[in-house]
Parts: sequence; structure tokens; C-alpha cells
Amino acid sequence: MGDLYLALLHHPVLDKTGAVVTTAVTNLDVHDIARLARTFALRAFYVCTPVETQRRLVARVMRHWDSGPGAAYNPSRREALALVRQVDDLDAAVTDVERETGRLPRLVATTARRGPGRTTFDALRARLAREARPELLVFGTGWGLAPEVLARCDDVLEPICGPGPYNHLSVRSAAAIVLDRLRNGR
Amino acid sequence: MGDLYLALLHHPVLDKTGAVVTTAVTNLDVHDIARLARTFALRAFYVCTPVETQRRLVARVMRHWDSGPGAAYNPSRREALALVRQVDDLDAAVTDVERETGRLPRLVATTARRGPGRTTFDALRARLAREARPELLVFGTGWGLAPEVLARCDDVLEPICGPGPYNHLSVRSAAAIVLDRLRNGR
Repeated sequence: MGDLYLALLHHPVLDKTGAVVTTAVTNLDVHDIARLARTFALRAFYVCTPVETQRRLVARVMRHWDSGPGAAYNPSRREALALVRQVDDLDAAVTDVERETGRLPRLVATTARRGPGRTTFDALRARLAREARPELLVFGTGWGLAPEVLARCDDVLEPICGPGPYNHLSVRSAAAIVLDRLRNGR
Repeated sequence: MGDLYLALLHHPVLDKTGAVVTTAVTNLDVHDIARLARTFALRAFYVCTPVETQRRLVARVMRHWDSGPGAAYNPSRREALALVRQVDDLDAAVTDVERETGRLPRLVATTARRGPGRTTFDALRARLAREARPELLVFGTGWGLAPEVLARCDDVLEPICGPGPYNHLSVRSAAAIVLDRLRNGR
């Protein structure tokens, strides 16, 4: 079974007008997705931002839970945040996966938009069970991944849909559903 | 098909020592679960807190998105938050469902803990498709619903598990997975 990794990108992502921007890191994204990563057995969760001051802020929050007062207050939070790795960008995440596993990961982009050639959850789950190559799920903040990221990824995962056309989940909710489907789907 | 509702309780819930407490409302819980409610076709999402000042704060946030600057900035957020109803407690939510549907809802508690007699997702999904009686999913903040809430509910839904024993998801993540499984499960 291939190792599963997740990267959350804060650049390059879209804003509501379609412009490419850098978003701020949301503290609860780090906590929620770290807990998902721990629950659903990811190897690591990369928080990708090119903004040095944002990385310092996240590092400070993580220190609180790792070696500060939070470590004794809530050990399960510490265990989850131990999976978080901060890097500049997607390239750095890819390099780190290669360093750890000896193989370049397959890049699987996520999107809320329908389109041709989307990879189904069933197909990705089957591939994870069958192949040894690591897979890196890529999530975008803001209004989603910039086209240049979608274009470089090997796969684009099918969007999560409800009964109607509304498709505005938070990236936290989308990550929860994607990981549950990959680990618990039938 | 029965209408599906969700209630998020801030009292009575447990803290990490097992004491019954009242938690503060987390702004992102309201946003994330409202967007889930809209995506997965819930009739309403009840934010339950007995603390009047907390309800005023949530009302102010909702006004921002409903008739304030947020309404034009992000109409999809407005559409989601329109499903939010603030009430004192679970009783008030039950009363409101009865007022709206003419029937008392079945109460389905959620928990991260295993135990005897849990209702499976398959069973609840089948019941939703088969029966007309509304169902009210009950989620707890903090360290989960107090025993008195679990005891009065008609069902307790099986917990969400990963490959290992770690079971510390945020309530936002848990709600996302529960609703996806109920609406998209096979």
C-alpha cells in the first residue's frame, strides 16, 4: 500500500475573482487537518506557505501544543500536530516525500468543480491498495487551487457533491470527507 | 423521505475531566456546519446555547453575512447561514422541528466512543429513505455530549474510526463525514 500525504496550499490559489493570490494560514485548518491526518493514517500533512511570518506564527502555535502548556493539557492534540510539516510550496513537499520514501509521489489535486477526466474515489482507493508509490493529495485554500497547480498534478479527484448544485464546503470539511472516503469507502 | 436536521449542543457537554460544562460557540463551527447543511440538504441547523451573550454574538456574525457587507461579498455564505437557527437547548430544537413538520423528530446522538447498540450508518440511511418521520442529529462540542443527552436520544450513531484507535476529530470534521455518509453512502 502506498503512503498517503496531504498538502494544503496557501499559494498559488484563487480568490473569488479568479486572481492568483496568497491566503493567510487559518489556525483551525492546521488543527482540524492534523487530527484528520492522525485519524486516517497519513504519513504527513504539509502546510505550504511562502510567507515567512505566517510560518513563524504556525510554529509558535505548534510549540504550544508540543512542548508548551498544551502538551500536558491535551496530549492527543500534540500527537496530531506532530504530523504537520511546514514548507514553502508544493515543490518542497514533493521533495520531502521523495526524501522520506525514496520515490516521487503521484500528485492528486482536489477541486470543487466538475470537469472531464476526474479520478473517482473508487479508482484512487484501489490504486492506494495496489501500488507502492506514495500519493500526495493537494488541497487549495481561498477559492481553490490555481490552474497551474491543477495542470501539473497527475490526477484531479472528482468533487464532493450533495443532492443539489451547492458546492461551497470549507477545505476542512472537504479534507474530512475525502480522507474518510479513501480510508473507509467500500 | 424524512427531513434531516442537525443540532450542535454547547450544553450539557463534557469537558476533558468528564464534568458537565457549557462551551463557548466557535465561529467556524457555525460557518462550516451551515455550509455542510446547505450542501447535504438539511432542513435546518440548530446552534444550541443557553448563554444569551453568545447568541447575540452569533446573531451579529450572521447579520454581517445576511444583510451586512458579507451578503454582497459572498452570497453562497449567506445562503448557507440562512439554515442556522439559534435556540436555548435541545428541547427548543425538538419543539421547532415539531412546529415545522408536525411530527416529533427521532433523536440521533453522535459520539466518538464505541459501545453496545450503536446504530450503523447503513441503518440510518435506510430509515431516512423509508420513513417520513424527521430525524435530528445531535452533536456535542467540548469532549462530547453529556450522558443525560445520550440517554434521552432514540439512537446513538456508530463512531467514525480510522485504521487505528485515534478518535479525536473536531466536531466540524465529524459532521462533514456523518453527512457525507448519510447522503452519499452506498
